[in-house]
Amino acid sequence: MPHTENPIFSLEMEVRDYELDTEQIVNNANYLHYMEHTRHKFCEAAGVRFIDLHNDGIDAVVRKIDIEYFSPLRSGDIFISSLNLERKGARFIFHQVIRRNDGELITKGDITCVMLKDGKMSRGDEVAALFSSFL
Amino acid sequence: MPHTENPIFSLEMEVRDYELDTEQIVNNANYLHYMEHTRHKFCEAAGVRFIDLHNDGIDAVVRKIDIEYFSPLRSGDIFISSLNLERKGARFIFHQVIRRNDGELITKGDITCVMLKDGKMSRGDEVAALFSSFL
Amino acid sequence: MPHTENPIFSLEMEVRDYELDTEQIVNNANYLHYMEHTRHKFCEAAGVRFIDLHNDGIDAVVRKIDIEYFSPLRSGDIFISSLNLERKGARFIFHQVIRRNDGELITKGDITCVMLKDGKMSRGDEVAALFSSFL
Amino acid sequence: MPHTENPIFSLEMEVRDYELDTEQIVNNANYLHYMEHTRHKFCEAAGVRFIDLHNDGIDAVVRKIDIEYFSPLRSGDIFISSLNLERKGARFIFHQVIRRNDGELITKGDITCVMLKDGKMSRGDEVAALFSSFL
Repeated sequence: MPHTENPIFSLEMEVRDYELDTEQIVNNANYLHYMEHTRHKFCEAAGVRFIDLHNDGIDAVVRKIDIEYFSPLRSGDIFISSLNLERKGARFIFHQVIRRNDGELITKGDITCVMLKDGKMSRGDEVAALFSSFL
Repeated sequence: MPHTENPIFSLEMEVRDYELDTEQIVNNANYLHYMEHTRHKFCEAAGVRFIDLHNDGIDAVVRKIDIEYFSPLRSGDIFISSLNLERKGARFIFHQVIRRNDGELITKGDITCVMLKDGKMSRGDEVAALFSSFL
Repeated sequence: MPHTENPIFSLEMEVRDYELDTEQIVNNANYLHYMEHTRHKFCEAAGVRFIDLHNDGIDAVVRKIDIEYFSPLRSGDIFISSLNLERKGARFIFHQVIRRNDGELITKGDITCVMLKDGKMSRGDEVAALFSSFL
Repeated sequence: MPHTENPIFSLEMEVRDYELDTEQIVNNANYLHYMEHTRHKFCEAAGVRFIDLHNDGIDAVVRKIDIEYFSPLRSGDIFISSLNLERKGARFIFHQVIRRNDGELITKGDITCVMLKDGKMSRGDEVAALFSSFL
């Protein structure tokens, strides 16, 4: 399932020039921003926003990121950021892929999140229930 | 050698409030910024700056990042960002650790870089020569 | 003409959660990013990209920014970023407005740019020619 | 008093390469980050942190920024970010200057803040009391 051709959510985005570094390619940290925004938009599409969860005492915290960079994005590039979601016990793993709109593979990342409830580790059952149709 | 207690370079830094997100912890992407700045300061201490390499046609490109988040940094935190360097063929792997100044482990990352010469993959021998005393 | 109801260019954008600060509102510096991206998209629509100008030795440099914040953007907000352009001698002044998509005024800014040619101040006639239909 | 040679607070900082844009100069928005961090460090030195104020229901909100860019910062530059503070009724105006460590003037900004108490405009008397020795 990870990184398959059948993502459960996709978002089209575009490079903004302030995201470029002196090598005229998107700085490595900005791909994490793209991926985070994609997760938040997915959650919103699934009916929940991280900021609302936060206000309810539930915080999704990133525990681990493994990301591979295949080809860089440049000024003016349009790209598709997509994801799949897997649950392993208390861990929620987002398998995320970014492709330029001509199909070129840009980056693949596995982002592992855990859920804190009032600041303490939880199994994330409330969150899993919200995502049940995707897991 | 990776992530040992004997880093070849360390840098003290401090959280800036604009790096925090709504959960009042440093956003996950900013740790990549901290680690990148640490690599660049290490390179500078070793007598070379990425921006000069760039102007000579050599670009260090991040190929892979594996990062684990143990504990978050918060407003006002001071931290030590340190690194070791390993070469595996054409790959330069920075083993990086961030600890809060009270010793708390914050994050560990393995950042794999490759060197482009005039836009093409190279073995990075010029760069390895510059870092020979550390490899 | 400045800040009129008749902008020469408008762009719809959306808040991304990593742009929020601990007060759960968009950090003040990010509005400059929104405005810069709007200028670059305007230039692209007018047939020119800043990065191409740069590669031709012409750099647009921001000389002055006056920006007023009326109401903050929050998580999930969609907004319209629009601009007008005025030339005063060697200065290009972008009059920029951001409104939330319900019409609420968010911010107004006057961004004054000058043009460097091979690193030296120029009158910016090449750039003015490119924008002649808007001036 | 504004922008005099006698700032009430100064902070030495250094350019980080991820703050540069494709023109190899610091992106205009990052100077607002530098200035914000300087204000927060000043507040901390005066015994108060914005994040603690926030947790007490008081939010400092930026209402207006007028900033002039004289000379750009580049990779490796070290700079001094300093400020003075003026109160005009409910407005707190930070007069901020950034100079490279060789004295070159980089940027000057007037940042006008107002204080919200539980989300509503206030005169900011609590905050003024905290800063009384500087006003």
